[in-house]
Amino acid sequence: MASRIPDIIIGRLPIYLRALQHLAEQGVQTVSSQELGERVGISAAQIRKDLSQFGEFGKQGTGYNIPFLIEKLRAILKVDRIWDVAVVGAGDIGHALARYQGFFKRGFRIIMIFDNDPAKIGKPIGDFVVEDVVHMVERIRLAGVKVAMITVPASAAQHVADKLVEAGVKAILNYAPIHLDVPPDVKVQYVDPATHLQRMTYYL
Amino acid sequence: MASRIPDIIIGRLPIYLRALQHLAEQGVQTVSSQELGERVGISAAQIRKDLSQFGEFGKQGTGYNIPFLIEKLRAILKVDRIWDVAVVGAGDIGHALARYQGFFKRGFRIIMIFDNDPAKIGKPIGDFVVEDVVHMVERIRLAGVKVAMITVPASAAQHVADKLVEAGVKAILNYAPIHLDVPPDVKVQYVDPATHLQRMTYYL
Repeated sequence: MASRIPDIIIGRLPIYLRALQHLAEQGVQTVSSQELGERVGISAAQIRKDLSQFGEFGKQGTGYNIPFLIEKLRAILKVDRIWDVAVVGAGDIGHALARYQGFFKRGFRIIMIFDNDPAKIGKPIGDFVVEDVVHMVERIRLAGVKVAMITVPASAAQHVADKLVEAGVKAILNYAPIHLDVPPDVKVQYVDPATHLQRMTYYL
Repeated sequence: MASRIPDIIIGRLPIYLRALQHLAEQGVQTVSSQELGERVGISAAQIRKDLSQFGEFGKQGTGYNIPFLIEKLRAILKVDRIWDVAVVGAGDIGHALARYQGFFKRGFRIIMIFDNDPAKIGKPIGDFVVEDVVHMVERIRLAGVKVAMITVPASAAQHVADKLVEAGVKAILNYAPIHLDVPPDVKVQYVDPATHLQRMTYYL
């Protein structure tokens, strides 16, 4: 693609993809931008505009072909493959992520989980055994892992992020309630429930 | 306030507040928009513009007074009080949330957790005992709870949301990987790790 697609549009594509995959699982074959819009809380006009950035996906009056659009969105988002993921931090959230069954069909597979607590290292979580964080950089680099999730306390998160960057990680989902300072070629997304809640209380 | 503040600005205020609270905990008294910007990954100009929507918070050259700005942001976001929160779903994520110690200083307090699994009802999680979801609507309504978090499977999430709305809840943090259909006066924020990851793989 010649032109750069705005981040805000890229941010909406996974929402469309998720809704389309739900529809496909129910056996639905086509969907209008109106119907899709109602399912994701985004206007039909916005959806048409967003998707038009990537070519022509639907015909006026007939709606989108769902399997075709899923295939296209998966290719655009590069989840038409499976990304190996490392989890750092074997606490409650690390447990939840390691046991979550919903990643694979959306393009991800957790393959390793690390902690620095001797009481946790060597213990099983789901299909994994918690590994010692001292081996993390080497393990991630050798495995070529590019995606990681940080679930350590805020006080340790920047140090862990630095190590992940050193190991070659380029995308970090950060559950620690702190901003991470990373090089420009590394992407970070944040999950912080208190921040999300504060975005709603303003309106109450 | 007479004019309506754009949602995107409101969405950034909790990020500023979190960074300011970190600085305050370290004993820092003032911060420039440049320094704050580096800590949150947002430009100084954007921060000044966002905050100017709410009045004059800083003087040219002297930076922002941190305790004053924290107080103002907490008032704007209505987290200068403590909001009671209900959690629905006592699985891994529900456990993690119920045990998380970081909510109180940011304006929230979980006071009840529900599940429909007889094996979980009556069991303790942190300081709570899991309650039967059949009593949820009545319990939430009587307690006047306006904020809830949904951590049930996707297949049950819309039904739970409907019940929460019936009970008077106005703000929902949804961990189920599905869009929720709610009335216009109810706010929803979404946490879905696969969606967050897909927002980054595009750039890899």
